[in-house]
Amino acid sequence: MIILQNGVFKEREEAYLDLDDRGCQFGDGVYEVVGVYEGAFFTLDEHLERLERSSREIRLVLPLSIEELKQSLSELAEKNGLENGSVYIQVTRGACARNHAFPDSSVRAEWLAYPMNPRKPSLEQLHGVGLKTSEDMRWLRCDIKSLNLLGNVMAKQEALENGCYEALLHRNGMITEGASTNFYVIKDGAVYTHPANNLILNGITRMKIKEICNNENIPFYEQPFQLGNLKEADEAFITSTTIEIVPVKLVDHQIIGSGVPGSLTRKLQELFKQEIQKEKSVHK
Amino acid sequence: MIILQNGVFKEREEAYLDLDDRGCQFGDGVYEVVGVYEGAFFTLDEHLERLERSSREIRLVLPLSIEELKQSLSELAEKNGLENGSVYIQVTRGACARNHAFPDSSVRAEWLAYPMNPRKPSLEQLHGVGLKTSEDMRWLRCDIKSLNLLGNVMAKQEALENGCYEALLHRNGMITEGASTNFYVIKDGAVYTHPANNLILNGITRMKIKEICNNENIPFYEQPFQLGNLKEADEAFITSTTIEIVPVKLVDHQIIGSGVPGSLTRKLQELFKQEIQKEKSVHK
Repeated sequence: MIILQNGVFKEREEAYLDLDDRGCQFGDGVYEVVGVYEGAFFTLDEHLERLERSSREIRLVLPLSIEELKQSLSELAEKNGLENGSVYIQVTRGACARNHAFPDSSVRAEWLAYPMNPRKPSLEQLHGVGLKTSEDMRWLRCDIKSLNLLGNVMAKQEALENGCYEALLHRNGMITEGASTNFYVIKDGAVYTHPANNLILNGITRMKIKEICNNENIPFYEQPFQLGNLKEADEAFITSTTIEIVPVKLVDHQIIGSGVPGSLTRKLQELFKQEIQKEKSVHK
Repeated sequence: MIILQNGVFKEREEAYLDLDDRGCQFGDGVYEVVGVYEGAFFTLDEHLERLERSSREIRLVLPLSIEELKQSLSELAEKNGLENGSVYIQVTRGACARNHAFPDSSVRAEWLAYPMNPRKPSLEQLHGVGLKTSEDMRWLRCDIKSLNLLGNVMAKQEALENGCYEALLHRNGMITEGASTNFYVIKDGAVYTHPANNLILNGITRMKIKEICNNENIPFYEQPFQLGNLKEADEAFITSTTIEIVPVKLVDHQIIGSGVPGSLTRKLQELFKQEIQKEKSVHK
């Protein structure tokens, strides 16, 4: 595998991080995961825009322009012959003697990008999954896609060990999102999801779902939803760059709707696939 | 500088982290900073006990016993001729292809230890410092000394840029602690500090102060303290392994007590110095 480190293409085995990288000592960095379909990035602009926003929010100066990054990522995908999968991009505030305060301007941000090949959850997309509820312990800036993900890791692992596919995080019963996904319920033909504020990461797939709903005249409400109201939901689903749209049939022991993926979720899955094809044809 | 990586002594320049270290991708690790005075560790047992607790709380299996770690750290200090300073110890859940879920058991935790030489704040200990209040945005497991420190970093930086030495974090006006210190007020001869629950890190220096107060019959109350009540405080101070005890004379524009380090803070500084000497004589 060829990776990109600070603008230089390297063999995976020849690249390392400094011991004093602030990414490791403080989680002082931001990241993105961008999907690749049949050799083309999907929603790359949106991901890079969010990377820029995350960086700005933690006052990290990106060491290159978004245009330069975009060019480099295309070369990276090409060099790796990447057809389907994703690319991980990470920027940290650099490496220097450990100190909470920002380093002085001589310390340059460090960045990395490399292909990943996550399993596409085809069976889960078809049959739906179960979620395990978990108290949302994370910080109050979940809108920043930062490297501080220990709360997400712990919730995800707990879900898996309970035979579930994903965690469903909530603050005192108010559902926020999954450990690495956004969460939605459908009731009477309308889609509900947590507002894009400081308590959730505004997923690029989430933005795309919102756009699809708007185009298709499917009501899309950004409102907090209570765990206690899940029994009233007709359908539910989760989304992310990696898993796209996966129906939810069970939350803890609560069956959602009829317990099988619902018709509106199926429709959104279909429309989402069309979006991927549409973007590909625009870029060609 | 000689560093320790997974039990092997190396020159600093020859040691690196793997790109896929979970410490960087998720902040999935724990750490400690232990002080060294005249060639001897201070409160090493307490720090290693806390490292063990932090690891347990995030379900990370330490790759060696505390006794082995203790032995290795002594050798590390010796090899570096470390007289005064500190040692940083970091353990992460290992390096493997990025995935929120814990890696399988074939992936070993990665650990590191190396000397640091932080500036001892002698002038600040003498004259006192100012703090900048900041909303505590951190997660709800601040009792774990994890690598998820971005909230601490941002608050510390904001404090420095406002001419202050440290941040004073609060949740809706209830003071928790500093960005890298514990915080205390003194009123009518009694010491008040936030309870050691999930909202603060129970500092080793904090535990030592509590022990000193108990031994000296100084009332020590673990109670939340409101920002709005700071005007009633006679004295205030902050503590950490690195800074020991530093008097606080100003919080934002609020002068604490008479605006100069108070007599009980001075007494605690003196007693703390004696503790360091006492532990040294016991270990000799």
